[in-house]
Amino acid sequence: MSAAPLKIAIAGLGTVGGGTVELLHAQAELLAARAGRTLAVVACAALARPDHLPLGEARFFTDARAMAREAEYDVLVELIGGADGIALDIVTAALERGRSVVTANKAMIAHHGVTLARLAEKTGAVLGFEASVGGGIPVIKALREGLAGNRVNRVMGILNGTCNYILTTMREQGRDFADVLAEAQKLGYAEADPSFDIDGVDTAHKLAILASLAFAMPVDIKRVACEGIRHVSALDIRYADELGYRIKLLGVAGRTEAGIETRVYPAMVPLSFPLAHVNGVFNAVVTEGDFVGRTVLEGRGAGAHPTASAVVADLMDIARNRTTPTFGVPVERLAEQPAAPAGSHRSAFYIRLMVRDEPGVFADIAAVLRDERVSMEQVIQRGRSPSEIVPVVMTVHETDEAAMMRAVDRLAALASVAEPPRLIRIEAL
Amino acid sequence: MSAAPLKIAIAGLGTVGGGTVELLHAQAELLAARAGRTLAVVACAALARPDHLPLGEARFFTDARAMAREAEYDVLVELIGGADGIALDIVTAALERGRSVVTANKAMIAHHGVTLARLAEKTGAVLGFEASVGGGIPVIKALREGLAGNRVNRVMGILNGTCNYILTTMREQGRDFADVLAEAQKLGYAEADPSFDIDGVDTAHKLAILASLAFAMPVDIKRVACEGIRHVSALDIRYADELGYRIKLLGVAGRTEAGIETRVYPAMVPLSFPLAHVNGVFNAVVTEGDFVGRTVLEGRGAGAHPTASAVVADLMDIARNRTTPTFGVPVERLAEQPAAPAGSHRSAFYIRLMVRDEPGVFADIAAVLRDERVSMEQVIQRGRSPSEIVPVVMTVHETDEAAMMRAVDRLAALASVAEPPRLIRIEAL
Repeated sequence: MSAAPLKIAIAGLGTVGGGTVELLHAQAELLAARAGRTLAVVACAALARPDHLPLGEARFFTDARAMAREAEYDVLVELIGGADGIALDIVTAALERGRSVVTANKAMIAHHGVTLARLAEKTGAVLGFEASVGGGIPVIKALREGLAGNRVNRVMGILNGTCNYILTTMREQGRDFADVLAEAQKLGYAEADPSFDIDGVDTAHKLAILASLAFAMPVDIKRVACEGIRHVSALDIRYADELGYRIKLLGVAGRTEAGIETRVYPAMVPLSFPLAHVNGVFNAVVTEGDFVGRTVLEGRGAGAHPTASAVVADLMDIARNRTTPTFGVPVERLAEQPAAPAGSHRSAFYIRLMVRDEPGVFADIAAVLRDERVSMEQVIQRGRSPSEIVPVVMTVHETDEAAMMRAVDRLAALASVAEPPRLIRIEAL
Repeated sequence: MSAAPLKIAIAGLGTVGGGTVELLHAQAELLAARAGRTLAVVACAALARPDHLPLGEARFFTDARAMAREAEYDVLVELIGGADGIALDIVTAALERGRSVVTANKAMIAHHGVTLARLAEKTGAVLGFEASVGGGIPVIKALREGLAGNRVNRVMGILNGTCNYILTTMREQGRDFADVLAEAQKLGYAEADPSFDIDGVDTAHKLAILASLAFAMPVDIKRVACEGIRHVSALDIRYADELGYRIKLLGVAGRTEAGIETRVYPAMVPLSFPLAHVNGVFNAVVTEGDFVGRTVLEGRGAGAHPTASAVVADLMDIARNRTTPTFGVPVERLAEQPAAPAGSHRSAFYIRLMVRDEPGVFADIAAVLRDERVSMEQVIQRGRSPSEIVPVVMTVHETDEAAMMRAVDRLAALASVAEPPRLIRIEAL
């Protein structure tokens, strides 16, 4: 154990920062045995010095920017968050000084990853972001190193624990979205402003990062099409159950003939697919590599301790001098890829129509689908209530999304269809 | 791309060797971009030079020992197999020369891992064995690096694809063990001598390796208690289904108050547990870390291409100079751990008794369980057939294994019990 300690400066001592300090303290001996050197917190920055954390002799800053510029450290751990502002300033300052950075900040990586990776390459620093996707699951390491022998064709995942908790609870308790969201907010599982989670923005950030790693393209949040879970109803969850599916918010990135598609949307996954069984706050990532086939990595996607586990995994790599280009290949080798145009996707679909229960309705629906060459698989219609509004639920075989959209527009226009049709993709790998 | 090529010598050009050559050829450009240097096969050894493999200019040896001693290479890839013999000779020869080794050979690592790791440390070589456990799943990397911030409390998995295929097929088709095994042999999924797989020996090798990584103890196959799947009956699989479980062959290593337990046995896992949904030839490993909580890694546990993916992951680490001590810490820091004594385990159990259907039988059974303080959870007894032999199936709450064993011995001795009782542990994490 002759090597010098790894000197760590931590910016942000909130949930994840606190968890990281606790982990480094609790496992100090174990980490030193594994790294061949000690990991020492030499500086930290927060609005006020917290009394409850084992910060020892660490120099305390109220100004994170000053710490990033002035403190003597090998690695800056950025746990403040936000795509820009202080986080971006201090990460840039550290990298400019040739100091490595470890961050859990998916928004910053999704927006500025390429710029930061280029800066890190220039100054010989490492930029680690294992904690930015999938909490404690070592998914970045798996994609960049463990599956490095593969050309990846598709990567998808359940990437937001709040959404998965809401969808799981809606199903288990048969409750409505708004009701479960309000409870999740009360319990602290969802933010007061939940939009970032439930509208899919957080999932989109993470997917942009996974897509960059999988397809060696510059990380670009703008190309991710994004739909959240506000529209998912208890009714659709019940029908999904009946048909043998679960509804999950997925981030999906895949190679298609038309280019790379990167999309976030609630999808139905069959019970035979591993993601169907990932419940509550757990996250999971499925990767399809050309040699390895399908792999699935599952674990806790958030929380102080799981996220700290990922932060420390990056620190251990740096301590042992295990390095990998930020996005798997040098920045100059990241290549723009055409984005698959909307509608080029092929998938199976679930459709729910609310129709007036009168003669001839079903013939009209069937005619529209036939005209668009959409082929029905299962149909559920029950509880005849003449001239009432009743649900008609169908699944259709794999079809062009564009054709499906045309069919839905025409179905919506039928006189007997009372509400906008509800369309959910069926997804598997 | 100024770094010198990584010079690779491959010993064994069977299924995995062939797959590795194919991968290195097919992905040459991708690998070079990721590694910053080319990966070049400069030598190979097999009984005869295969015509169908893209071996280019590689020097061909019929004598693997001569190749290991004489060829100019940076890494020897050992894909011959067997705990001793040629495999051990050539790996030793390479490490003695200070050349790194990548192997898929779980038997050799389980039997000689510590000796080989010590030799590698002495000569500054790397010993990579990602392919030895879980096929293409990057499980060694996850345990050694991705979860390096954690103290692991338990690691368990479905580690043998042949057994999982047999158990899955028995369940899906309601067929008997012998019948499905015979078919698996015909299809090439099971060996002519299937003992290595179905008696749990292969799983034990892999578990010994995982336990060493998880608990920083010397790898030691002798301490693994091992029970295979020959006794698993179609009847028990049917009852498992009815009770909400799946039967899986598990390798389980865990810290207990009495020491580390390492055991292989068929277990019932509840449907709420991820391993219940790992079917066919897929493998999966569940790890419980003190900070990260539960993680699950799933993928193809065998086959030419998935295993080649893992071999190449190790080669990429060596090409990029990413090194880790063989078992996570230097050999001198691996510490012997007390083995938990048999019977100290606590778990829930499934018991099936075949009893003569006569008055008073159930009272006798209940009395035995009460005397041993074993608490019943569910009971299934149906189809009254006076004085015929009928199954009585029970699950019991978590109990000391020793007490359960005493109860089973006493149940077996009851006059009305016609066959040895069948006992299966219920396992979750």
